[in-house]
Amino acid sequence: MFVVLVYDTAAERNPLVLKTCRRYLHWVQRSVFEGELSAAQYRALLAALRTSLDLGYDSIRIYRTRSPHLVETEWLGRETGNQDSIL
Amino acid sequence: MFVVLVYDTAAERNPLVLKTCRRYLHWVQRSVFEGELSAAQYRALLAALRTSLDLGYDSIRIYRTRSPHLVETEWLGRETGNQDSIL
Repeated sequence: MFVVLVYDTAAERNPLVLKTCRRYLHWVQRSVFEGELSAAQYRALLAALRTSLDLGYDSIRIYRTRSPHLVETEWLGRETGNQDSIL
Repeated sequence: MFVVLVYDTAAERNPLVLKTCRRYLHWVQRSVFEGELSAAQYRALLAALRTSLDLGYDSIRIYRTRSPHLVETEWLGRETGNQDSIL
């Protein structure tokens, strides 16, 4: 599946959330990750994030499609991100 | 089409970017908007954003699918956003 993840977490938890997301996805923009994951990887990512978050305060929004080919992506302005830090 | 838009813009331009995005999309999380747009609305949104941005500094990442039914969405933690401010 293709996953886009946007996090809005307290500053003190950002390093751990970033580290967890980088294990599974590409960083593309401030607070945005994307990438292709298997169902097992997706479950592992969510489980890892749940242990890192304060679920009453932090917020993560996730979008999934079956394939990246179903999604058109576009930049306006500066293209950020990188392609390293992937499983 | 279904559109997800994430902006990373300089603080002084945020109010204008927010105002522009709110004319077309739902705010769902800090710096994230989503919604259904026609092709004409999408073009109008991009044209409005281009006049608001410093394209050498600001960054907007956009994801589009043909239909919202192609996208599974999920929250981890706090569900933010609202359903007002739509065209």
